[in-house]
Amino acid sequence: MSRPFSRVTSYDVARLAGVSQSAVSRCFKPGASVSRKMREKVMKAANELNYTPNAIARGLITRRSNMVAVVVSSRMNFYYPELLFQLTDKFSDRGVRVLLFNVNQEEDVGRHLSQIWQYQADGVISAAYLSIEQHRRLRGHNIPVVMFNRYFDDYATNSVWCDAGTATSEMIDHLINFGHRRFALLNGPEDSMVNRERMRLVRQALKRHDLEPVTQAWGNYRYESAAVAVQEIRNAGKKVTAIIAANDMMAMGALDEIRNVMGLSVPGDVSVVGFDGINAGRFASYELTTIRQPIRRMTEAAVAMLVDRMEEPDTTDEKRVLTGAFVQGTSTGQAPA
Amino acid sequence: MSRPFSRVTSYDVARLAGVSQSAVSRCFKPGASVSRKMREKVMKAANELNYTPNAIARGLITRRSNMVAVVVSSRMNFYYPELLFQLTDKFSDRGVRVLLFNVNQEEDVGRHLSQIWQYQADGVISAAYLSIEQHRRLRGHNIPVVMFNRYFDDYATNSVWCDAGTATSEMIDHLINFGHRRFALLNGPEDSMVNRERMRLVRQALKRHDLEPVTQAWGNYRYESAAVAVQEIRNAGKKVTAIIAANDMMAMGALDEIRNVMGLSVPGDVSVVGFDGINAGRFASYELTTIRQPIRRMTEAAVAMLVDRMEEPDTTDEKRVLTGAFVQGTSTGQAPA
Repeated sequence: MSRPFSRVTSYDVARLAGVSQSAVSRCFKPGASVSRKMREKVMKAANELNYTPNAIARGLITRRSNMVAVVVSSRMNFYYPELLFQLTDKFSDRGVRVLLFNVNQEEDVGRHLSQIWQYQADGVISAAYLSIEQHRRLRGHNIPVVMFNRYFDDYATNSVWCDAGTATSEMIDHLINFGHRRFALLNGPEDSMVNRERMRLVRQALKRHDLEPVTQAWGNYRYESAAVAVQEIRNAGKKVTAIIAANDMMAMGALDEIRNVMGLSVPGDVSVVGFDGINAGRFASYELTTIRQPIRRMTEAAVAMLVDRMEEPDTTDEKRVLTGAFVQGTSTGQAPA
Repeated sequence: MSRPFSRVTSYDVARLAGVSQSAVSRCFKPGASVSRKMREKVMKAANELNYTPNAIARGLITRRSNMVAVVVSSRMNFYYPELLFQLTDKFSDRGVRVLLFNVNQEEDVGRHLSQIWQYQADGVISAAYLSIEQHRRLRGHNIPVVMFNRYFDDYATNSVWCDAGTATSEMIDHLINFGHRRFALLNGPEDSMVNRERMRLVRQALKRHDLEPVTQAWGNYRYESAAVAVQEIRNAGKKVTAIIAANDMMAMGALDEIRNVMGLSVPGDVSVVGFDGINAGRFASYELTTIRQPIRRMTEAAVAMLVDRMEEPDTTDEKRVLTGAFVQGTSTGQAPA
């Protein structure tokens, strides 16, 4: 092909800039400490010579590609773009680039997996489903993995997790104080660990008030899936005054279905809550009562954890658990008489 | 570091599988044609030997990294995640991975630019601002570029563009037919080419009816920026019955401000329209009247165009212009008397 590799070397740049060759290397090494003056001198010379350090060739020497794979799923869940852009910015600050793997169905992970080592990613953050077997294969290639918002009960790994226990209690107390006693659950997919855990916490909090859900339905975490689920809850024929959705996207879909299709009032007739604390849930049409993940802290933790393991592969596995916060919006209010 | 490169070669895999070495190569070359039976044989042998073709080492030989840089901006504009995931899926189908560059401010592009060639990206799709100078530098490194939703008037380049001319006429006709005569413009950033072009089309369509906007205000394309802009439009003291926003995010913000903060009706008191046709604009709380970009076609065109240039660098520059569609929602209606 017609793209020749640059013939100019760091030595040429060093000579023109009047500095040492190692100073030039430092200027092009992400995260290395270099004075502003040195950097200016070197960059001026590098530009004049059209010098390009070759990150890939460098990777073959350092055994580092300075790339990580980020695996996300569910394009129509606004949670993932927020997560992805935060991770990308934080890796970028450390001179690491993100190779994006989007899995539209969680089963797609397998299809992408071998590319992660083919491209020599230095590490993986997965916010999508990864089986223990897939996890083992990545480790077999000495690629550290951090699971985001997921972990295994029976297989040690690195993970960042949000504990919503206290916040879920507060959310249920808040609804009980508003007179709610008849709750419906709007679940995510049945095989979702996040859904199972969130609903377990909800049931546990209800139980403390000697309550259990009067009915439940299932969606797929997407906005669109909530409409049918809400109709199912209504068709179950049991009076319900509060709907607890497994994520904000479905809470928004439920709220719109109740308000704009059924013509009922939220929260006048039905209160609706979600989980995640996504930005769209704060829009004035929704103002969801929800449990907010500390996503900034969680992405910081995941990036730091992965970079640590890239630098010291023998570091022991760690699970970092950050605490979710109950956030009161206007989607909840007094239960109807 | 402790990650050794695999010592197993394609020759070992070929021998174990009982096939030719070139058959093994084909099995690991994205997009190459291989029978299912052959693939199974080879993959079985490769798994047994824990064989990993090294995409980066391969890249040094083929001069292809099989990675492209995708540059997006404005995390709080839901348009970009849609675009990004569509591009990623389409590149993935062609065996090409996306290196993500997120620029929170368009000025950040410069900071990231040199990484695009350091990582040996085979090409770039930029949906963020790129100056002619920056464009030239990428070309100087023989990296083909496709600009998404942007082009230069005075510098030939590859671009994919949405022509909203006809659709804008239809939108204005639609509003005129509903009795609207007093329009306010809710602009995007003053230096945005997309904003300039959209507003030029709006003014041109109004002019055909001997009208011009009675007032205007500016936002930054984000939801939050519309609230202040709408207040400014109101404070200008001129009666307005329709607000034309430069994108859907601001139209959603305007609609929420009018409905939920000012307590007025949309479209009873004011009609609101946007541009883009993002998914969130279809949510029942909004149901925006808008001009929808054919984003699937546009991303297909951009990916095909870039891959063409990666394979045949001397291909002449091309601008592909797809047509936007007027979509009537419920955010527009009869003008108040």
